[in-house]
Amino acid sequence: MKKRLFTPGPTPVPESVMLRMAEPMIHHRHPEFKEILSRVNQNLKYLFQTEQPVLTLASSGTGGVESTFVSLFSPGDTIISVNGGKFGERWVKMPKTFGLNAVEIKTEWGKAPTSEQIMTALRAHPHAKAVYLVHSETSTGTATDVKALARVIRDNSDALVCVDGITAIGAHEFRFDEWGIDVCVTGSQKGLMIPPGLAFVALSSRAITAMESSKLPKFYFDLRKALKAHAANDTPWTPAISLIIGVDASLMMIRAEGIENIWRRHKRLALALREGLGAIGMKLFSDSPSFAVTPVWLPEGVEWKAFNKTLKGKYGITIAGGQEAFAGKIFRISHLGYYDELDMITVLSAVEMTLHDCGHKVELGKGIGAAQAYFAINP
Amino acid sequence: MKKRLFTPGPTPVPESVMLRMAEPMIHHRHPEFKEILSRVNQNLKYLFQTEQPVLTLASSGTGGVESTFVSLFSPGDTIISVNGGKFGERWVKMPKTFGLNAVEIKTEWGKAPTSEQIMTALRAHPHAKAVYLVHSETSTGTATDVKALARVIRDNSDALVCVDGITAIGAHEFRFDEWGIDVCVTGSQKGLMIPPGLAFVALSSRAITAMESSKLPKFYFDLRKALKAHAANDTPWTPAISLIIGVDASLMMIRAEGIENIWRRHKRLALALREGLGAIGMKLFSDSPSFAVTPVWLPEGVEWKAFNKTLKGKYGITIAGGQEAFAGKIFRISHLGYYDELDMITVLSAVEMTLHDCGHKVELGKGIGAAQAYFAINP
Repeated sequence: MKKRLFTPGPTPVPESVMLRMAEPMIHHRHPEFKEILSRVNQNLKYLFQTEQPVLTLASSGTGGVESTFVSLFSPGDTIISVNGGKFGERWVKMPKTFGLNAVEIKTEWGKAPTSEQIMTALRAHPHAKAVYLVHSETSTGTATDVKALARVIRDNSDALVCVDGITAIGAHEFRFDEWGIDVCVTGSQKGLMIPPGLAFVALSSRAITAMESSKLPKFYFDLRKALKAHAANDTPWTPAISLIIGVDASLMMIRAEGIENIWRRHKRLALALREGLGAIGMKLFSDSPSFAVTPVWLPEGVEWKAFNKTLKGKYGITIAGGQEAFAGKIFRISHLGYYDELDMITVLSAVEMTLHDCGHKVELGKGIGAAQAYFAINP
Repeated sequence: MKKRLFTPGPTPVPESVMLRMAEPMIHHRHPEFKEILSRVNQNLKYLFQTEQPVLTLASSGTGGVESTFVSLFSPGDTIISVNGGKFGERWVKMPKTFGLNAVEIKTEWGKAPTSEQIMTALRAHPHAKAVYLVHSETSTGTATDVKALARVIRDNSDALVCVDGITAIGAHEFRFDEWGIDVCVTGSQKGLMIPPGLAFVALSSRAITAMESSKLPKFYFDLRKALKAHAANDTPWTPAISLIIGVDASLMMIRAEGIENIWRRHKRLALALREGLGAIGMKLFSDSPSFAVTPVWLPEGVEWKAFNKTLKGKYGITIAGGQEAFAGKIFRISHLGYYDELDMITVLSAVEMTLHDCGHKVELGKGIGAAQAYFAINP
C-alpha cells in the first residue's frame, strides 16, 4: 500500500534529500564536510531571518530546548513559561528539574496566550530572566502571536524572549532579528523536511552574554562549546553527518523557493484544507490555528479508533490523534514541510471517504470542491 | 575521485543500509516502526551479549556517556576513571562538571591500565560508586583488558563496572553479562556501521537499582524515562527514525555474520595490516593495540602534512592523524566495521605509494605481500 504521512513531525522527506543522505559516508573533519557545514550555518541564518549564529546539535528538539535552559541560566533564576499544551507543559517541567523557578502561564488548550497574561506575569516577576513562548503548540495546533508578545516582553522587561519554534519555523512568518527574539529552537523533522535527530538553536547577542554567567552544570548541551566550535564551522562532538548533509539539501530547496513564499504556501494550504473540512461540516479545534497543523473535532458519532484504523489501513494515511483530555475527540492533519495543493486534496479525499466508510453522512467531493475553489480564488 | 574512509568513526556505511535509510519516512508511533524498534532492542542485546536492556538515545556517544553519569550518581559521589587518551580524559572532566568526585587513573598514551592500578585506586577509594574503563581508546588505538579488570573490580569492591565501548563494540570480544559489566555505551558510527547520531547504553540490574537513588538533575538524558519507554518499544523523545532503521539493517547483517566471527574478522584484519606495516619498517605506537584501529609512528623524515595531503588528495583515502602531543607523529588506520581483506590491501597500497611519493624509501608491494601471506596462513 502506498503510504502518506500527514503528521507534524516526522514530516515527509523529499526524495532528492533522502538520496543525498544515502551517498557514501564522509568524515566530519574532511574539507568537504566543513564546506557543507559552513553552507548549512549560512542558510540556517536565512531560515531564522537572523545575522546571529544558529547552532546545530545532535539531539531531538527537546534536547535543543534543554540546551537553552542549562546554558543560559543559574539555579534559582526565575523564568516564565507559557503552558497551553503538551510542549508548553514540558517547558515548565524541564526548567524545574534543573532548579530554575519556572513560573507557569497556563492557557486553555486551543487558546493562545494574550499580551495581558504576559504583562501580568512580568509585573508579578519583574526579575524574570526569560519568557518561553511556544510559537506553534503541536499538541493543540495553536499558534501564538510571537511578534506581538515579543514586543510586549521587550518593552516591559529585560527578560530574554525564548521561542520554541519547533513546528513553526518554515511554516509561520518568523523574523529573529527584526522581532527582537533572543533564543529560538527548532528540530530537523519539521519544516526542515529531514528525518529527526538534529536540533537547531539561534542565539542573540543578549543570549550569548547570558551564557557567560550561567552556573548550571552542563557538558553535552553546553552551548558555549557549541558556539566556539561553530565559529570554525565545527561541532564540539561528532555531528550527525548524514542528517547535516540532508539539511544542507533541504536548506537549498528552502532558499530556492524563498522563505516568504514558503510561509505563504503554508498559510494557503492550511486555509484551503480548512475550507474543505468546513464544507463537510467539520469544526476546527483551536481559536488560533497554526499554519503547520490543523486540529479538528471528530464529528459526533464517529469513533476515533475506527476512523484512524480505516484512514491508516485502507488509505495508507497517517495523521495525529488528540492528546490527553482530547484523545479520541480531536485529530490533527499536518501540512508542515514538503506539501502542495494536491496533497491537501489527497488528505481531504481520504477523510471524506473514511467518514463515509465509518457510516457518517458526508457528501463525497464537497470538501474537495471547496478546497479547490479556495485555491482557484487565492492563487 | 573514488573516496575511501579508514577513520575510527564515522566508519563506512554498507550501501544496503544507506538505501534502507533512504526509504520514505515513517512515523515513530506507527506499528511498522514499533516492530523495527522491537527488533533493534532484541538485536542490541545480542551485540552486547546481554539479557539486560540496551537503550537507544538520539545523541553522539558523548551524550550516551553523559546519560550514565547524570542518571546513576549523586553530587559528591566518587567515581574512578581511567585516562589514557582523549576519551578517557573526557570521562574525567565530564563527571567533575556535574559535581562528582572523579578520581583519575592516568596511564601513559599507548599503555593500557593494569590490575594493580585499579586495585590501588579501589584501596584508596573503597566507597567509589563506579570505575569507568575505555575498552578501546580511539585517540591512541589502545585496548584495555576489560574482562580482567572487571573481574578485579567485582572481586574487590561494590563499584559498578562502566565501559566506554564506543570503538570496541563490534570489534573486540565483549560479554556484558558473563564479564559482570554494569554499564556499556557505544555509538552508531562505529562497529554498528551507520552514520553518527545514536548512542546505545546497556544497563545491568545493579545499574538500574543505582538509578533509583540518583539525585543529579536530568531530563533529556534521564535513563529512567528511557528505560520505562524501552519496555514498551518506545522512546521518551522523538527517536532519530532513519538512523534506527539503519541500525535495524546493520544489526541484521551482524546477526547473519555472527558476533564471534565479527570479532575474529577484526582481529585478523588488524594483525594482517600490522604484518604489512611492519614489513615496510613501520612501528606500532601502542603496547596494547586495539583491533578497531591501528596506531602507527610516522617514519622519520616523513612530514604528516605532506603524507596526509597525498593520501587524501591523490588516493582519496581518509585516515586519522595523531592528537595532542602525538599530532604529526603518529597516524591511525581504522578497520572498525564494514571492512574485509582487500580493504586492508587497499589502504596498505595507498600507504606504500604515499610514502614513496613523499620520498621515503620503501620497497613497493613488500607490505602487501606480508599482509597477503598473513591472510593465507591464517584463513
